Amino acid sequence: MISAKGYAAYDPVQPLAPYDFERRDVGAHDVMIEILFCGVCHSDLHTVRSEWGGAMYPVVPGHEIVGRVVQVGTQVNRFQVGETAGVGCMVDSCRSCSSCSEGLEQYCEVGFTATYNSPEPGMETPTYGGYSNRIIVREDFVLKIREDQDLARVAPLLCAGITTYSPLREWKVGKGHKLAVVGLGGLGHMAVKLAASMGAEVTVLSTSPEKEADATSLGAHKFVVTRDAKALEKVKNSFDFIINTVSAKVSLDMYASLLRRDGTMILLGVPPEAPELHAATLIFGRRRIAGSLIGGIAETQEMLDYCAEHDILSDVEVIPIDYINEAYERMLKGDVKYRFVIDLSTL
Amino acid sequence: MISAKGYAAYDPVQPLAPYDFERRDVGAHDVMIEILFCGVCHSDLHTVRSEWGGAMYPVVPGHEIVGRVVQVGTQVNRFQVGETAGVGCMVDSCRSCSSCSEGLEQYCEVGFTATYNSPEPGMETPTYGGYSNRIIVREDFVLKIREDQDLARVAPLLCAGITTYSPLREWKVGKGHKLAVVGLGGLGHMAVKLAASMGAEVTVLSTSPEKEADATSLGAHKFVVTRDAKALEKVKNSFDFIINTVSAKVSLDMYASLLRRDGTMILLGVPPEAPELHAATLIFGRRRIAGSLIGGIAETQEMLDYCAEHDILSDVEVIPIDYINEAYERMLKGDVKYRFVIDLSTL
Repeated sequence: MISAKGYAAYDPVQPLAPYDFERRDVGAHDVMIEILFCGVCHSDLHTVRSEWGGAMYPVVPGHEIVGRVVQVGTQVNRFQVGETAGVGCMVDSCRSCSSCSEGLEQYCEVGFTATYNSPEPGMETPTYGGYSNRIIVREDFVLKIREDQDLARVAPLLCAGITTYSPLREWKVGKGHKLAVVGLGGLGHMAVKLAASMGAEVTVLSTSPEKEADATSLGAHKFVVTRDAKALEKVKNSFDFIINTVSAKVSLDMYASLLRRDGTMILLGVPPEAPELHAATLIFGRRRIAGSLIGGIAETQEMLDYCAEHDILSDVEVIPIDYINEAYERMLKGDVKYRFVIDLSTL
Repeated sequence: MISAKGYAAYDPVQPLAPYDFERRDVGAHDVMIEILFCGVCHSDLHTVRSEWGGAMYPVVPGHEIVGRVVQVGTQVNRFQVGETAGVGCMVDSCRSCSSCSEGLEQYCEVGFTATYNSPEPGMETPTYGGYSNRIIVREDFVLKIREDQDLARVAPLLCAGITTYSPLREWKVGKGHKLAVVGLGGLGHMAVKLAASMGAEVTVLSTSPEKEADATSLGAHKFVVTRDAKALEKVKNSFDFIINTVSAKVSLDMYASLLRRDGTMILLGVPPEAPELHAATLIFGRRRIAGSLIGGIAETQEMLDYCAEHDILSDVEVIPIDYINEAYERMLKGDVKYRFVIDLSTL
């Protein structure tokens, strides 16, 4: 076994605190990564507070991992010691169901192994995530990262980036499309950057008029305050797509009514309480609502390459690891532009 | 003006009763049809009881009309006196918006003119529907009906037929697809017949075990009682499509969870109360929910031709017009297989 250290939640209410633990040895197909940066995703908070249920304490969260390869197994072909590498939300899957065969491991019919708080195949301990100094992952779930980038700003691409990139590709968003983004947080700010880079006309829908300057600087072409009934009326029946990143209970009908005929709203956030949906909102206009979950490994690599090529990075606030509990409190207040990223050299 | 007679609702609570009224003269582009049969749609009941609001009494319902052309305007090219013709849910639209230009008059951005209870362009009276002896309609909203068919059984195709045919075509349902139908009524029984004719494997989902024999005789390949938890578990993640015809509040999550990855549930019914929808149901499995409204005029003609060619007809109970109020009561109890059709010779 390999000793590791990190920060963990020991129960749903206490602050995260230092934790020493063991990781598996580096197997033939494994890569060991010394972690440099790890993004702080809202899922981390949901999990450690057991808001989704099923937390296996102690929980070491973190699934937006960028680091350096420090050891490789005997059968590893794709990575060499010293290379920059990334790990996202998944570290394994069944590899044989129809979803896995199509490179859609996120929809693995047996269930993928999440980067943290997931039963680790063949072990009694759960998986432990990136709020730690090192991680051991099978090479085919490790991503290549171009190292001439600001690596702290690359980390959030591993979840926030792929979660927004995947539906934009699946629904072939591009030139000539009008796309709205709801929720200007970690996911939303990436949706704006990515959709704009693909040629769509991007509108940010927000309850806060003061976010307009930020939206514009991220690349949004238009900004609509949703509490302004007149402004909202003007964009009814107008969007080809809405990327809805909000994980609070908001009106599906209100947003869907802004879709034009055959328009699609894609849900990325999971509100704890389910909102209502009137069938008539979809029937009149043949509108569609869909969900999308992160992205497959091949597509995650494609996204990382695309972002490197187009100079797309997350906007981040780099923090020392002992700031994590305060970061959570600020995240709950929406007080972050747009992602906290832990500098693991502070561990 | 041309005198007409029919049955009308005078208010939301009294039974329908005879009504004498006037229709517009036959204009240059108009066709006058002597009505032979008119199907009884659930929308008729919703409208006369003002459950959707906006009833303009007296309301003469009926939008599943088959009859004989008895007069044509000077500019009419497509119809001749003596031919069999049909009228569905629409009698006009703006003809110039992008939806109309694409042959999707049902999504007319100005709003189409419904066959009844709609403001009639250029007149002070509303449109009056097919519970009457004759109707005058612009020729481009009149459908051609092959006359060597059982015309009473053709009438419901004009609404129940096209409402189910259109989404099956839009989503390209065919061989290799597993499709479920929820709600075995007027729409549902047509969905079963049409989807089976297109090559899909059709499953009827029903709360009532006693409907199995009927489902099979309509062409369904499988039958699942949704109150049987074990049977339901077996079809989780299995359907490419679900055609949901129910207009009562049912669980969207329960049905959507039966969709496989990338599967689509199409909503055709409008429940008065909105059900809830958990985003997670769509996100895990990249599932989709869509709506669909009747069909355009060109597609309605295509559907009528398709049904004539494949010998697809609605299963009906032909009634005299003075039975309409009793028919409504039986319809509310689900006591009809599967559509009442009024024989207008009884007027």
